[in-house]
Amino acid sequence: MDIKTYLRDGKESVDSFFRRYFKEQRRPAVLQESMLYSLFAGGKRIRPILAMAAYEACGRSAAEIVPYAATLELIHTYSLIHDDLPAMDDDDLRRGKPTNHKVFGEAVAILAGDALLTEAFCILSDPSFCPSVRGDDLLQASKEIASASGAQGMVAGQVQDILSENAEPDGETLQFIHRHKTAALIRASVKAGGILSGSGGETIDALTRYGENIGHAFQVVDDILDVVGKTEELGKTVGSDEKINKMTYPRLYGLERSRGIAEQLVSDALSSLDIFSSEADSLREIARYLLARRN
Amino acid sequence: MDIKTYLRDGKESVDSFFRRYFKEQRRPAVLQESMLYSLFAGGKRIRPILAMAAYEACGRSAAEIVPYAATLELIHTYSLIHDDLPAMDDDDLRRGKPTNHKVFGEAVAILAGDALLTEAFCILSDPSFCPSVRGDDLLQASKEIASASGAQGMVAGQVQDILSENAEPDGETLQFIHRHKTAALIRASVKAGGILSGSGGETIDALTRYGENIGHAFQVVDDILDVVGKTEELGKTVGSDEKINKMTYPRLYGLERSRGIAEQLVSDALSSLDIFSSEADSLREIARYLLARRN
Repeated sequence: MDIKTYLRDGKESVDSFFRRYFKEQRRPAVLQESMLYSLFAGGKRIRPILAMAAYEACGRSAAEIVPYAATLELIHTYSLIHDDLPAMDDDDLRRGKPTNHKVFGEAVAILAGDALLTEAFCILSDPSFCPSVRGDDLLQASKEIASASGAQGMVAGQVQDILSENAEPDGETLQFIHRHKTAALIRASVKAGGILSGSGGETIDALTRYGENIGHAFQVVDDILDVVGKTEELGKTVGSDEKINKMTYPRLYGLERSRGIAEQLVSDALSSLDIFSSEADSLREIARYLLARRN
Repeated sequence: MDIKTYLRDGKESVDSFFRRYFKEQRRPAVLQESMLYSLFAGGKRIRPILAMAAYEACGRSAAEIVPYAATLELIHTYSLIHDDLPAMDDDDLRRGKPTNHKVFGEAVAILAGDALLTEAFCILSDPSFCPSVRGDDLLQASKEIASASGAQGMVAGQVQDILSENAEPDGETLQFIHRHKTAALIRASVKAGGILSGSGGETIDALTRYGENIGHAFQVVDDILDVVGKTEELGKTVGSDEKINKMTYPRLYGLERSRGIAEQLVSDALSSLDIFSSEADSLREIARYLLARRN
């Protein structure tokens, strides 16, 4: 398989769903514009693609769950809009474009984030989107996604991140931040894909371990890229984390050891997939891709 | 029936659920404190009580669905926290207490709102909370609640409200704001209660009409109270809507005609309940209470 083609096709099926879903112009226009501005600001749709690849690893066809997989991008996008707000990281650029509040103002940006988050659950509570998914599995996947996004997942990580600005770096706090802020939703993406297929037991356990490891690796690589990446490749101001004294891996462990940690995590992720046959090859390639990515 | 006792008991069962649900101290502590600060800031739990009363009107026992009903208060509370933010209405007081961002800062207030919204869907995707509810009905109720809260419901109303500040009042825009910002979630509360009971057809239609009418009446009465209420009774700065030139019923139609509109809406709400027997008496009393309330 060619991973670049796979990722491009996955992104296209998610984008195509969004175009259909948001086709009708809703009122007020500025709310929809603001939501779509960030939704189509260049995201790679990694989380939906992970959910679809996990569903495939369970022997199913990814096309069956595109709408549910796409909800992970709605939630990820909402979190970026809120993270960028002046009260949070106060970022002017995201993926090389002005952040949502820079274009639409703070009030609309906050509300567009709220609306994207809510829209995810509009879709996740509607069985008509994906008739091949059982109602009980849909509820369980939805629970997984909601838990990973909220006060025991992503939001907890973001609050801890803010609390830790300018604090002395310590490994335990850094782990807590990354495990919650980034890894939780990535793990839930993989796990939800498995759950939606109707799989259970050791299949879900293996997918969960894979998701946990690549979620963690993803954030370590992000931290490394923030130090060594070029502004044009990353689309945000390089060193912006260091500027506000964010707790990061390179800051705590140095670059070389951080790279070693990322490699070990991806290696562990690959081992978790040993129970799967070639149907999990997409998941394997994605793990290698995440380690090698430059932006 | 005594409506005051009914409301007090309903509030107590919701509060008691929240105390159990949030019993374990989660990390970071400040996030949970911020969430609970607004959740226990004196809300009357009208939306959960409406859901429970609608469930009762369908011949069931309200105690069976307290957790799902309570999610409506989580969503309502999140919306108040975000509405009060400096970027929105910039309110310092809510129900006589400092608003969330005044106590915890803007960043934590935004995230506590995000977490409360997400928590609602953690509960609504978990069938184990209310075993007497069928999975399909849970999904349908959840869909109803999510739709009423998002870009085609409450958030749309709030965006339009902000866009209309200092604008010339017009009836059509005012209707849009109120129908979305307040009435949508109140209607969904009533309708979700009916759906959770497994009812369908004309029962749900009647509950929807009731919910639509009292939701609308609720906001008209709120507008009136904002003009005539005493600060100590209402717990917020009286006239605060007028201060920032919000579009309101009294501003557009005057006080007397606004009162007439509220009375008509409640009368229509009561007529919608004609197909029900005495099992809908709680819904009837709540409608009368909402019209007569002083805060």
